Amino acid sequence: MMKQQVEIPERLTGKLRIRKPNILVTNDDGDCEGLRMLLEVAKGFGNAHAVIPNKQRSAVSGALTLHKPIRMRKMSEDMTAINGTPSDCVLFYLHSGHYEKPDLVLSGINWGDNTGIGSILGSGTLGACWQAVLEGVPAIAFSLRKKGHEYHDKAVWGDREAIMGRTTEIIRALLPKLDKDNFFSVNMPEEPKNATIVNTNRLQRERFTTQVTKRLDPNGAPYYWISGLEKEIEPGTDADHVIRRKDITVTEVSLKLFAGD
Amino acid sequence: MMKQQVEIPERLTGKLRIRKPNILVTNDDGDCEGLRMLLEVAKGFGNAHAVIPNKQRSAVSGALTLHKPIRMRKMSEDMTAINGTPSDCVLFYLHSGHYEKPDLVLSGINWGDNTGIGSILGSGTLGACWQAVLEGVPAIAFSLRKKGHEYHDKAVWGDREAIMGRTTEIIRALLPKLDKDNFFSVNMPEEPKNATIVNTNRLQRERFTTQVTKRLDPNGAPYYWISGLEKEIEPGTDADHVIRRKDITVTEVSLKLFAGD
Repeated sequence: MMKQQVEIPERLTGKLRIRKPNILVTNDDGDCEGLRMLLEVAKGFGNAHAVIPNKQRSAVSGALTLHKPIRMRKMSEDMTAINGTPSDCVLFYLHSGHYEKPDLVLSGINWGDNTGIGSILGSGTLGACWQAVLEGVPAIAFSLRKKGHEYHDKAVWGDREAIMGRTTEIIRALLPKLDKDNFFSVNMPEEPKNATIVNTNRLQRERFTTQVTKRLDPNGAPYYWISGLEKEIEPGTDADHVIRRKDITVTEVSLKLFAGD
Repeated sequence: MMKQQVEIPERLTGKLRIRKPNILVTNDDGDCEGLRMLLEVAKGFGNAHAVIPNKQRSAVSGALTLHKPIRMRKMSEDMTAINGTPSDCVLFYLHSGHYEKPDLVLSGINWGDNTGIGSILGSGTLGACWQAVLEGVPAIAFSLRKKGHEYHDKAVWGDREAIMGRTTEIIRALLPKLDKDNFFSVNMPEEPKNATIVNTNRLQRERFTTQVTKRLDPNGAPYYWISGLEKEIEPGTDADHVIRRKDITVTEVSLKLFAGD
């Protein structure tokens, strides 16, 4: 367990407030080892509480649940699950009255990288960060390159201490760069080859070739699966760095992209 | 019914193809008058087919359904409903093998404007357009400033011919500007004051103040509604144009925003 107390810059927490920063931890996978690692890392920086979806909500983008009620279930002192999306988790934390105003949102650690432009829009992990900055709270998303679907198995996540150490160092490095208009998406290979972090906004256009597969149920009625096959990696892109060169990458997404003129 | 046959530029359909363009019409409200108007307008430009969510999917952003199967139901010769999101509709149209490759995706006409940065990420109507351009198909989203929730009532949509006429003119104006890296989000007031279309990328940061309202069910257990209250309109923004000045606005969103360097 790390014990460092890195200061979150005053411009984010407001001057003269002598208190520990409040940190919301969320993700799109629900309760799993990636979430628990990030929650523990967050506690090294301040008061951290996790509000997470009560089930797998990958690829849910910035979706909000406006047409049905949200139920909450407190799982432990530091963790609450709701029947909502990652963006719902952010709004619930901010506006339900159950928590103090957050200074920072951390989302992840996601099972699987979020490289490519499609992830900027489609990832639930990043959807939470979009929602956070729209509400004026800076955010960082963490995604770990992983294959397969066994994310519920704690044993397959890799070296816990190493991953938490890297995550801590990255948060330290990014804190001075955060403001209320941006968020950062961090992608980590399983075993980084290089200590330096690559800043890149050169994203692969599409990481996946979409497939729609038709099957017949036992009654003979058709149903379809939407899925994706990994495309070839484009040299020089975020995917190239993370997957082929085993670099850690950081991509900044700023709302100023849409501030016009 | 309009009979104009406006050419979709060759660079979008591919040279030497002497055929009518294929147009996918989708939305996030499901079957309603706004969808039917846009489908009829689309038929003035080519072969148009609607693939839509089988229920209301507002605010669903670019969410994809990867964890459960999709069922399709053909509603009529020109309309298919699936138990999916707007982005699912785009992928289903492109990859199920039931349709020819689309030259253009039209999404809407949405009940309610999609002004503000939050809509760029959160709207299901725009989510379909993001998905389309990620797949290399140009797209236009149409949203009509409306209040209330009676969108199922055909009578409350306003002057059908006037809305369809405006929509047709806007598509004509935008066709030469479309490419495989961008989409356009069009916002229309109910009764425009000006004939000119305002191009704006100066978006209001947040159009809504989020509220999370706690209630108790008949058993005394709490549940929560996530909702939003309209904020004051910021002068000079897209919302100012559409809502206060009654202008039609067009906002271009380009994937080049994320192409870096």
